[in-house]
Amino acid sequence: MNKKIKQKIGYQGISGAYSEMAAESFVKKSSLKNTEYIGYKSFDEIFANVENAHLLYGVVPVENSLAGSIHRNFDLLGKHNLKVIGEVYVHVNHQLLGLKNAKISDIRQIYSHPQALMQCEHNVKDFLPLATMVEHFDTAGSAEYVAKQADKSKASLASIKAGQAYGLKVLKKDFQDDKDNYTRFLVIAREYANFKNLNKLNSDKNKFKTSIIFTTENISGSLFKSLSCFALRDINLNKIESRPIPKNPWKNQFYLDFEGKYNDEIIISALNNLKDYASEIKILGSYFNFFK
Amino acid sequence: MNKKIKQKIGYQGISGAYSEMAAESFVKKSSLKNTEYIGYKSFDEIFANVENAHLLYGVVPVENSLAGSIHRNFDLLGKHNLKVIGEVYVHVNHQLLGLKNAKISDIRQIYSHPQALMQCEHNVKDFLPLATMVEHFDTAGSAEYVAKQADKSKASLASIKAGQAYGLKVLKKDFQDDKDNYTRFLVIAREYANFKNLNKLNSDKNKFKTSIIFTTENISGSLFKSLSCFALRDINLNKIESRPIPKNPWKNQFYLDFEGKYNDEIIISALNNLKDYASEIKILGSYFNFFK
Repeated sequence: MNKKIKQKIGYQGISGAYSEMAAESFVKKSSLKNTEYIGYKSFDEIFANVENAHLLYGVVPVENSLAGSIHRNFDLLGKHNLKVIGEVYVHVNHQLLGLKNAKISDIRQIYSHPQALMQCEHNVKDFLPLATMVEHFDTAGSAEYVAKQADKSKASLASIKAGQAYGLKVLKKDFQDDKDNYTRFLVIAREYANFKNLNKLNSDKNKFKTSIIFTTENISGSLFKSLSCFALRDINLNKIESRPIPKNPWKNQFYLDFEGKYNDEIIISALNNLKDYASEIKILGSYFNFFK
Repeated sequence: MNKKIKQKIGYQGISGAYSEMAAESFVKKSSLKNTEYIGYKSFDEIFANVENAHLLYGVVPVENSLAGSIHRNFDLLGKHNLKVIGEVYVHVNHQLLGLKNAKISDIRQIYSHPQALMQCEHNVKDFLPLATMVEHFDTAGSAEYVAKQADKSKASLASIKAGQAYGLKVLKKDFQDDKDNYTRFLVIAREYANFKNLNKLNSDKNKFKTSIIFTTENISGSLFKSLSCFALRDINLNKIESRPIPKNPWKNQFYLDFEGKYNDEIIISALNNLKDYASEIKILGSYFNFFK
């Protein structure tokens, strides 16, 4: 019997992080077998370890529906010669977690990442008027901390998975004020995705998406002309974002997501046309856009 | 002699925050006199206090060159009936701050906001290999904390202003890895800016800018058509961003900045034309774009 080598997938954070949930969700959707998840402290380490082939894939957040784009990871995508082969949306859903013997009325301190604390502010005021909020480096880390302290007046705001990982109980579920909080993750690899097995999935409901970065010299006319390459071919755009470069106001970088694969005839033609108006065009990758 | 009532300007954070520097920079550029700065814990409080006329102006960050857009404040701009009357760019420039009697070789713990720690990671490794990094709620707060601890093995990464506010010494200046780190702030008020005195400043080098939010039903054709309202009138765009709404993939919100004032003839015509392709158009305001 062969002892199989595990396929390693990197994410940022510790066990119970929303990033780990994103990695698991991708593995499930793409039916990968025999995988191992590895948490890293920084995004840089994930990119470096995919590049040096220690990791098969890395999973990194690129935008959040409440907080916005994470330019850091777009920069790393620009810098490294890696490809995007997938995307995952994770519903960020904070649970109020405490010790097994704790009740809501016991809680006096609530630990979490500043953004998670802010996202639960109104519920904390309503349900725990006596509690103070204490900032922690990350959500899963705050769950680990509360478990270690073994003090039933302390609670954490983190994922249900973090509660399971550190043996905490859900004191109040789905605790954030705005339930509509999603983070989009991209899956990075050394090679473009292989579409041979995926073509049969392409339908009206399930479409491929391509992400590119490009630069224009002057945002006015050339952005409009750049978009014409797609609009005049009826290619749907999913995302557009100009990158603020305050020191260089006459040059602009754009992130663009559109429907289709980089090797579709119509996309090849659009990208060729784009070269007339834009420079430094980088195809980050094409991937399957699981309909949400 | 009249006892003048001070004009109150709100920012998020405590004294020494980069937001306070943004407020001061705006006051200086617009030659406001007799002002008072008030720090708030949350952005919500700033919007509420401008709305109820407790504050004359609020100053809120909307995007950072490394971290991306701060959607939270765009949301608050959409929700509140307030106007944008100015913008300020602040160079985010972290200093390594310690006690007056400390030397770099004494430092064992470095406190700051997680983002600031990340932005100085390589320099910390190179210059302070023995130090550990400890997360703190904000940069200025970490300077206040280090000053209070009165322990010369502790340092903070914060603005030069925070160092002055809490009596710390600059142990190593301009300590971040990437010097090109800017945050853009918008200045909010109850009324649109009065352009009577500003018109003389409008030249090729100093231009007005207008910020709007709008929604399109389907991103493909209608975004292109929406931008045509500006491109075909030779109106320069400064920023464009689509807002990810994962639950509502067929409807998209855009932030758009372009050159000109909302009451310029050509802008009135472009915005009228925009109504053919977009809905929920909100003019956030027009303001003077100090050439950087």
